[in-house]
Amino acid sequence: MLEELKEQVCRANLRLAAEGLVMQTWGNVSGVDRDGGFVVIKPSGVPYDEMKPEHMVVVSLETGEVAEGDLRPSSDTPTHRVLYRALAGVGGVVHAHSLYATAWAQSRREIPCLGTTHADFCFGPIPCTRQLKPEEIAEDYEANTGKVIAERFASLDLKHTPAVLVAEHGPFAWGAGPDEAVTAAVTLEQVARLASETLRIDPSPRPIPRELQEKHFLRKHGPDAYYGQT
Amino acid sequence: MLEELKEQVCRANLRLAAEGLVMQTWGNVSGVDRDGGFVVIKPSGVPYDEMKPEHMVVVSLETGEVAEGDLRPSSDTPTHRVLYRALAGVGGVVHAHSLYATAWAQSRREIPCLGTTHADFCFGPIPCTRQLKPEEIAEDYEANTGKVIAERFASLDLKHTPAVLVAEHGPFAWGAGPDEAVTAAVTLEQVARLASETLRIDPSPRPIPRELQEKHFLRKHGPDAYYGQT
Amino acid sequence: MLEELKEQVCRANLRLAAEGLVMQTWGNVSGVDRDGGFVVIKPSGVPYDEMKPEHMVVVSLETGEVAEGDLRPSSDTPTHRVLYRALAGVGGVVHAHSLYATAWAQSRREIPCLGTTHADFCFGPIPCTRQLKPEEIAEDYEANTGKVIAERFASLDLKHTPAVLVAEHGPFAWGAGPDEAVTAAVTLEQVARLASETLRIDPSPRPIPRELQEKHFLRKHGPDAYYGQT
Amino acid sequence: MLEELKEQVCRANLRLAAEGLVMQTWGNVSGVDRDGGFVVIKPSGVPYDEMKPEHMVVVSLETGEVAEGDLRPSSDTPTHRVLYRALAGVGGVVHAHSLYATAWAQSRREIPCLGTTHADFCFGPIPCTRQLKPEEIAEDYEANTGKVIAERFASLDLKHTPAVLVAEHGPFAWGAGPDEAVTAAVTLEQVARLASETLRIDPSPRPIPRELQEKHFLRKHGPDAYYGQT
Repeated sequence: MLEELKEQVCRANLRLAAEGLVMQTWGNVSGVDRDGGFVVIKPSGVPYDEMKPEHMVVVSLETGEVAEGDLRPSSDTPTHRVLYRALAGVGGVVHAHSLYATAWAQSRREIPCLGTTHADFCFGPIPCTRQLKPEEIAEDYEANTGKVIAERFASLDLKHTPAVLVAEHGPFAWGAGPDEAVTAAVTLEQVARLASETLRIDPSPRPIPRELQEKHFLRKHGPDAYYGQT
Repeated sequence: MLEELKEQVCRANLRLAAEGLVMQTWGNVSGVDRDGGFVVIKPSGVPYDEMKPEHMVVVSLETGEVAEGDLRPSSDTPTHRVLYRALAGVGGVVHAHSLYATAWAQSRREIPCLGTTHADFCFGPIPCTRQLKPEEIAEDYEANTGKVIAERFASLDLKHTPAVLVAEHGPFAWGAGPDEAVTAAVTLEQVARLASETLRIDPSPRPIPRELQEKHFLRKHGPDAYYGQT
Repeated sequence: MLEELKEQVCRANLRLAAEGLVMQTWGNVSGVDRDGGFVVIKPSGVPYDEMKPEHMVVVSLETGEVAEGDLRPSSDTPTHRVLYRALAGVGGVVHAHSLYATAWAQSRREIPCLGTTHADFCFGPIPCTRQLKPEEIAEDYEANTGKVIAERFASLDLKHTPAVLVAEHGPFAWGAGPDEAVTAAVTLEQVARLASETLRIDPSPRPIPRELQEKHFLRKHGPDAYYGQT
Repeated sequence: MLEELKEQVCRANLRLAAEGLVMQTWGNVSGVDRDGGFVVIKPSGVPYDEMKPEHMVVVSLETGEVAEGDLRPSSDTPTHRVLYRALAGVGGVVHAHSLYATAWAQSRREIPCLGTTHADFCFGPIPCTRQLKPEEIAEDYEANTGKVIAERFASLDLKHTPAVLVAEHGPFAWGAGPDEAVTAAVTLEQVARLASETLRIDPSPRPIPRELQEKHFLRKHGPDAYYGQT
């Protein structure tokens, strides 16, 4: 079942590794089939160089039960499932421990919008979740990780913000499908790195004005976008 | 028309990516035909691995109208056009979001001349423009980006300064042709990185003395230059 | 003798270099045959590109005497021998001068647990030894290097801590065999780098709560681990 | 003449570039024939990918006159010549603008000995010259660059110190021949990088004790060295 989505999810996982965002097995990409109610995701702890589409695991979006696949799904599957249910229109989700975005997550700070590179990607800062409470860690930890992300987006416009930092942990990013989610994770990593490099020149940088943020975000993503080809 | 210039511009765009100065589609190189009054530039948002000379777009230097090409020109084309008109003798222009130069642009600071590597490239600091005003962002944003660069160069000697930082945005660099412009962008990136690394050892470094700046710049670029072969 | 272990040790040394943790000849991996009482280790100062299994040196775990091999064993062999005797269950040991872990060792500080990436690897900080005393440097320096590591682990649970920093020197890491020891050294290097990048955003970061450290370490390494395949 | 030395010098220049220490044409390696009184050096400003042994230039150690070769010698040739005359026993010299060593040179600071990696290479700090005076820049600049290095070594033991930083400029390194000089430049770059990374964790690090410096330097380079093979 879902052979094409398995192919896409497998290819996106391999691209995530090829882009340098994954060490060892620390990363995962999933895709969703909203009509059927399934999530297709990387198996847990399998080396990238042996990964094939048939290793992808199909789980129920609703219950998390494995519908197809011989391997255990990624241990982060409950987080992905919560995200698909909370973030309407999202078709692919990435989790990684990429260096620069994870450093920001470890500092428990949102990434301020310090330039047009950031504004081309995200309108406003890259948000950071609150810390999980001890009881949220003790039980249903992975689902609660999704819950604090959803909570953070209650007051944010999802269309403006393709990624989030989970405090003390690392980034999640998303897009229309698995490949777009990887592009978002790659862009987030560069935006995080640029912000770190800026801090080293000016330890207290001011965000760029709202007009410039809006201009760059909308010329690329707005209804009258004029970046790229039609 | 302008087949040779299209080849040069295409090759320079590919080199910009190969030098590691471009992520995704965030960069563009153009060349000018001053006799005919045309600018040849990369199309907007086209992946580098599919780029061919016939994709390059020819626009009027004066009006910006497309004279040849099926694709939309880079959204930064109005900036390039303003630069060619403001900067006499420049034959190629590069815009990039390269990591270290962009971090300096995001900190809204000129790069001071901290060593002979910088002095071999640029006589004096790498200048930084002022921020654009809200009304300059709202209308003709890309042309106004060129305008603040031109404004900054009103009091600078263009022959001494092959690059500029646009505040809150990123670098532009230029040269006698598209390939020389890419070399300038690559050198700028290394000079920016060296300055960042110096800051980390000494947070308040003093620029090198004027005599040493002059010596290095002139032995390479002055009338009695003795660096390289004749 | 011990042909299979020699193969493993040689391959692990080559992997250490391929992972970018070794410059020139500054690193070494060993394996132990606890039944026979032998350590198999890289020869001293031999280039990696010429290294073959038959160059590995077999020494007595007890006395350090060479039991087989035409070359001198690594000058750090006495440290490895002390570690095998002090750290029960360890089957492979790595020493490297990898950039980020060595920088922490040079700062004489343990690496605090700043995120889940660290907690997936080590329960608690990466410990740092005390400095050696002048008389410990003057005589039996390499054995004393092992001694200060063993001393540091007197009050630590070895199963929770797969690596250590020797103050003013660099990291040692270990595992069930030579290959697992290299994986530990690679992971340590990334954890050290992440901590350095976090410091640059927040110069005084707080470690993550004990609950989160425990959750991540145990879901991967505890008796009820659910990360990876069974 | 000197065909073998030309081969060595050419190969060493290519290795310098392959090791990542050279951008564009910013670096040069030379070798000396002390019996004949000649220096063999890279030509000025020639791209590395076209460089062949027959392009190397032979100049008189004493007068600097070109003895063989169709190309101009490196503009830094006078510095190399002064160094060969000042530093007895040196057979090869490298100059580079490598990132980390140049950043230290730009901060006008010696690199303190912060760990055993440094002590394995150099006994004591990597020294930094004084700045050149305006009149030393105005006339015979390149020879005076050699002069301030020689001046700095008047009170140093050359056998303990295989490299120097020229303030505001960059590193020079040397060895028994051109290849050994490149190894010294590569090691210096890593030692400089390690020191920069250490500063970021501890902004005021203390050098390691003299006993440990001596132990590491002498076990590798002293009369009773026991590192490597005999």
